Amino acid sequence: MVAEAEEKMKRIGMLTSGGDCQALNAAMRGVVKTLVNSRQKVEIYGFLDGYRGLIYGNYRMLTGNDFSGILTKGGTILGSSRTPFKTIQDPDENGLDKVAAMIKNYQKLKLDCLVILGGNGTHKTANLLREKGLNVVTLPKTIDNDLWGTDMTFGFQSAVNVATEAIDCIHTTAASHGRVFIVEVMGHKVGFLTLNAGIAGGADIILIPEIPYDINKVIKKIEDREKNGSRFTIIAVAEGAISKQDAKLTKKEYKKKLLNNPYPSVSYEIAAQIQEKTGREIRVTVPGHTQRGGSPCPYDRVFASRLGAEAGEMILNGEYGFMVGYKNREIVKVPLEDVAGKLKMVDPSSTIVKEAKLMGISFGD
Amino acid sequence: MVAEAEEKMKRIGMLTSGGDCQALNAAMRGVVKTLVNSRQKVEIYGFLDGYRGLIYGNYRMLTGNDFSGILTKGGTILGSSRTPFKTIQDPDENGLDKVAAMIKNYQKLKLDCLVILGGNGTHKTANLLREKGLNVVTLPKTIDNDLWGTDMTFGFQSAVNVATEAIDCIHTTAASHGRVFIVEVMGHKVGFLTLNAGIAGGADIILIPEIPYDINKVIKKIEDREKNGSRFTIIAVAEGAISKQDAKLTKKEYKKKLLNNPYPSVSYEIAAQIQEKTGREIRVTVPGHTQRGGSPCPYDRVFASRLGAEAGEMILNGEYGFMVGYKNREIVKVPLEDVAGKLKMVDPSSTIVKEAKLMGISFGD
Amino acid sequence: MVAEAEEKMKRIGMLTSGGDCQALNAAMRGVVKTLVNSRQKVEIYGFLDGYRGLIYGNYRMLTGNDFSGILTKGGTILGSSRTPFKTIQDPDENGLDKVAAMIKNYQKLKLDCLVILGGNGTHKTANLLREKGLNVVTLPKTIDNDLWGTDMTFGFQSAVNVATEAIDCIHTTAASHGRVFIVEVMGHKVGFLTLNAGIAGGADIILIPEIPYDINKVIKKIEDREKNGSRFTIIAVAEGAISKQDAKLTKKEYKKKLLNNPYPSVSYEIAAQIQEKTGREIRVTVPGHTQRGGSPCPYDRVFASRLGAEAGEMILNGEYGFMVGYKNREIVKVPLEDVAGKLKMVDPSSTIVKEAKLMGISFGD
Amino acid sequence: MVAEAEEKMKRIGMLTSGGDCQALNAAMRGVVKTLVNSRQKVEIYGFLDGYRGLIYGNYRMLTGNDFSGILTKGGTILGSSRTPFKTIQDPDENGLDKVAAMIKNYQKLKLDCLVILGGNGTHKTANLLREKGLNVVTLPKTIDNDLWGTDMTFGFQSAVNVATEAIDCIHTTAASHGRVFIVEVMGHKVGFLTLNAGIAGGADIILIPEIPYDINKVIKKIEDREKNGSRFTIIAVAEGAISKQDAKLTKKEYKKKLLNNPYPSVSYEIAAQIQEKTGREIRVTVPGHTQRGGSPCPYDRVFASRLGAEAGEMILNGEYGFMVGYKNREIVKVPLEDVAGKLKMVDPSSTIVKEAKLMGISFGD
Repeated sequence: MVAEAEEKMKRIGMLTSGGDCQALNAAMRGVVKTLVNSRQKVEIYGFLDGYRGLIYGNYRMLTGNDFSGILTKGGTILGSSRTPFKTIQDPDENGLDKVAAMIKNYQKLKLDCLVILGGNGTHKTANLLREKGLNVVTLPKTIDNDLWGTDMTFGFQSAVNVATEAIDCIHTTAASHGRVFIVEVMGHKVGFLTLNAGIAGGADIILIPEIPYDINKVIKKIEDREKNGSRFTIIAVAEGAISKQDAKLTKKEYKKKLLNNPYPSVSYEIAAQIQEKTGREIRVTVPGHTQRGGSPCPYDRVFASRLGAEAGEMILNGEYGFMVGYKNREIVKVPLEDVAGKLKMVDPSSTIVKEAKLMGISFGD
Repeated sequence: MVAEAEEKMKRIGMLTSGGDCQALNAAMRGVVKTLVNSRQKVEIYGFLDGYRGLIYGNYRMLTGNDFSGILTKGGTILGSSRTPFKTIQDPDENGLDKVAAMIKNYQKLKLDCLVILGGNGTHKTANLLREKGLNVVTLPKTIDNDLWGTDMTFGFQSAVNVATEAIDCIHTTAASHGRVFIVEVMGHKVGFLTLNAGIAGGADIILIPEIPYDINKVIKKIEDREKNGSRFTIIAVAEGAISKQDAKLTKKEYKKKLLNNPYPSVSYEIAAQIQEKTGREIRVTVPGHTQRGGSPCPYDRVFASRLGAEAGEMILNGEYGFMVGYKNREIVKVPLEDVAGKLKMVDPSSTIVKEAKLMGISFGD
Repeated sequence: MVAEAEEKMKRIGMLTSGGDCQALNAAMRGVVKTLVNSRQKVEIYGFLDGYRGLIYGNYRMLTGNDFSGILTKGGTILGSSRTPFKTIQDPDENGLDKVAAMIKNYQKLKLDCLVILGGNGTHKTANLLREKGLNVVTLPKTIDNDLWGTDMTFGFQSAVNVATEAIDCIHTTAASHGRVFIVEVMGHKVGFLTLNAGIAGGADIILIPEIPYDINKVIKKIEDREKNGSRFTIIAVAEGAISKQDAKLTKKEYKKKLLNNPYPSVSYEIAAQIQEKTGREIRVTVPGHTQRGGSPCPYDRVFASRLGAEAGEMILNGEYGFMVGYKNREIVKVPLEDVAGKLKMVDPSSTIVKEAKLMGISFGD
Repeated sequence: MVAEAEEKMKRIGMLTSGGDCQALNAAMRGVVKTLVNSRQKVEIYGFLDGYRGLIYGNYRMLTGNDFSGILTKGGTILGSSRTPFKTIQDPDENGLDKVAAMIKNYQKLKLDCLVILGGNGTHKTANLLREKGLNVVTLPKTIDNDLWGTDMTFGFQSAVNVATEAIDCIHTTAASHGRVFIVEVMGHKVGFLTLNAGIAGGADIILIPEIPYDINKVIKKIEDREKNGSRFTIIAVAEGAISKQDAKLTKKEYKKKLLNNPYPSVSYEIAAQIQEKTGREIRVTVPGHTQRGGSPCPYDRVFASRLGAEAGEMILNGEYGFMVGYKNREIVKVPLEDVAGKLKMVDPSSTIVKEAKLMGISFGD
């Protein structure tokens, strides 16, 4: 009879990987509350610092209590680390085969499945583990909202809020001093965060990777605003924004350019160009990592909780190999092989871009 | 030639009606920025205090400047008032036919169309004006998110934030004192606001109009939590929540009951019942009108701006008779006759309710 | 030698009593960080739920880890309860002498001192324990800022922020609808909280217990504002506000009046009076317990940390019998016998009241 | 008789100078509300963009309406500019004597006095104008809190809030990733802002100009924390922080060093040193101008309103030549000649520094 009970026991491994973001804890809480609330027996092993914990067998047993009071807490109680997909297949400095080590630890703990929370890089590794025969369920975490297969990722809306607040703060200074201000927004290689924070913050110009900019059009917009009596201009620049010229370069040429670039980021390059061409003094503000941090906003708390609950249900049903996504306001199960290696980007012909342009926002194109 | 120019001039009337909410200004700014940013000549007449301004010809000419800096401002620069549909067809205290007066003012100002921002009541009147031959475009404003034909209304997410913040604040007190707390959330006759703020705030019990509650199940949940070692319980109660017993009453019987009800609201009734049956002291908090106010959250600013821009484009294209809505992440034009008189409610079998239950949240059913 | 080590070990009991407020955790963290950071050996016993924990020997050992990450957390990790001074000297339902029990538990655990965080009621009991020979150090916790002997209490500024935010939210609605709004602010029997939140929120009328109001003067102010073109009036009412008439009653007469009062609080009475005398519809908002909750503001975090550190130093130095206070920007040690039983109130002739009146704010006097 | 009325009319010029900050509008509102609320006739001339407006006669007449609704608004409705004291006595590019021009405009408008809101630089010029015979009243505006003669300046507490929020956001990321993070806080040459935001944000190390740091002591603290099991360290660095070595340089030598410095700011230099000496990767976040912006916090709104009201009263009484300050919780009138050219700094032996050290915060000294 004990054996039978053993069979019924679910053993779940859980880890958070990649850059941290808001609502990671909320999502894990959703999973665990669902598992604990079911009648099934469950043991939850939390691997520390992302895949590293799985590789080196670094974990701790988690109970419902560990997840009490963390709904509103930023970061991740499990810790995280960036483990690039490119290097995960290489042996570590002691010659350890990392993938084999993960599989071994999975088997040693007799896990029924792994719950993996992460972004694009994380999903490549998660899919690799699935290919190797592990049961995997993933949750789409990233402030960039660039995961393929889901309309939304948790962390995104909270990051929009932080970035918007930064633009709001800059707004009053810009208006008081009659200056041109650049606020550099995160988002890696995509523009969702900048686009939304830019519209929400009332930016006059929004520059995103998906719509390469012409610096002369940017300057034109600044000058047009001045002609119309505006004392100031706010430019929201995605950290991955790129000029039309640079967009023509090959990947290799662009990397080379960045290496020789005297500017710490594209915002400073844009500022220098405007300054040089017009004599205007441009101020650059980079809210940086603050965009990943702090308490998740209610939207993200609800969204992450919902995805977590669905992941919990999938585990209870033994459905594996999927990312829990959100499409057209419905929860969807996206096969991991479809997610891995793809990138969701802003469609330059999407309605939100059209609407921004209708309101007079320039994309420098 | 002047005549021709006159013909090309668009004359737009604009008004905000019903309870105010966040992002009304953002939405109007979206409309006006789009109109001003187009090549067409436009005159904008802002009617003051909702339909009243249109009835009594109380308006002021608006320019782009009026809409500068209001993206982040709560309330409505035009003022608002509740003008119940039931009485709008009655003459006023001086015998004035209000509907006729509105039509007359519309014609007198040679308006091309009316932009009307409002909720359910507002849309009934807007549809009436459409039936009378006026060109009308509407925008879905309400913290209740109960408008038929659109997945989302602006104001909703900001109100979720305020209500969640109230629950967050109560959480620390409840945890410190080991008490049962009720937070009464707005939402009129529907539960979207309570459902979302409840999940976001980590409420243990959520009571909404669409899922009538059994007070004994509510008490059971509180007692179960205590048995499991929880010191406190948070109950999010929609202002329109209703018990299973009351849900069986006819509309007339229920109204009669409310009239004789010694409790200022359903929350106090629930508190009294729990207190009576269990001896527990229950605290009730009613954030009330604060849920309508303050600066709109970035989500609402983006959403309202987008709808506003679309309304602006529709006006430029001469498309009238629609509410600008949002369905499956796409902007949609919903015929006013379809919107008027309908109510969107929480579906008790929807996935969000299922997910909340998976996580152990009780709906008292 | 063991005995000597024992002698050097400090055993500290700690408890939080009375209504919870923000920065209780920050203050305790300040004490504990200081103790842990010193070279001395320390054991910290946290009594649960205020004096109750001390009475019934309900405690847990605390380490530095318990205080990690709680700087920003509202409430109190020790729990709190209201234990009225009047009843603490009565035996409990089982005939237990509560004061004797507290002394016994103190002695049983060989405590060197008690750190007690609380407000006015708490300080009466703390002083009683001091009189009975226990070593006591207290910290001034209350959102009311009504503790004698200190210019400031922690919790106050955070509560001002919550109350101000409520007034800010109401402001947009009031302005949009052209209404008179009352926001009822906490503060027990004193007006500091209402005075500060009222000025910060731009209230037009502020009613506090220390300046009894004349309802006709309140109405006059509303009417004067309307004559000057203001569409709305915001009234900040302290929960302890009192009319000139009622202020003339004896304590007993006033209590009797309150018992027969049909209004849930003074705000509703004022609203009813204005409504009756002028026909205006007045809306009342009561943010209530939210004013005690949520994350402490940076001011309170710094202030509470500072007081906590000073308390820690006093314990290390063996200085007992004091409340750590703040006077003229200096930390002061206030003898407990001076604090107990006194009340700090708003001085109607203070400069802040004068300044509010200079700006045109009415106190209804 | 007209002449007599003329005599009674007060003509007030007003300007905001230097970097903008929160509560400038609140302070001006306090002045104007007090003037308007008095029985005296008043005309208010708002000079645009700081002293520039006074130099070039660029102003607009202001009424009470201009100051309605700006209590919560960041920035300054008059605009501001930095006009260094060093250059104000030089002729402009057209040979205009700027000081003479200001005096001339003052006289031309028959002003009774100037209300000047600004920080250290502003006060030098204000005192110069006083010496030239103009009536001047000033208000202490700066996020740095470095004005001599007043315990507090408005803008400071709001900036503490923004900086603390940045540290809060970084905290969750630092804890999740187990990293060392530097947050660079504004404050010009003094450390008040960093000291307060550092304590409020729970920083482990605080580096301020008044306490030069030893990089080895900073590293020692990081390593000690790791030994004690802490995964991360937060360092709050004032933009004016200086190493012990650099503090020994002459002003000229230090300026020369800065010119040749490859690092954009001291934070990056510290990060590079730690990285070089320990191999640790250090992340730097610079919230920058956001610290000046956004809505003023309730503390600043009250404080600025109070100072404004006092300035208004002084004007009504004809008291000129003072900065309205705040000392030991009392409003004080500080002679401008005492303020100009002095700097208030953090006293390394002050109790707040002692308390921070008691709690284990390192200042790297």
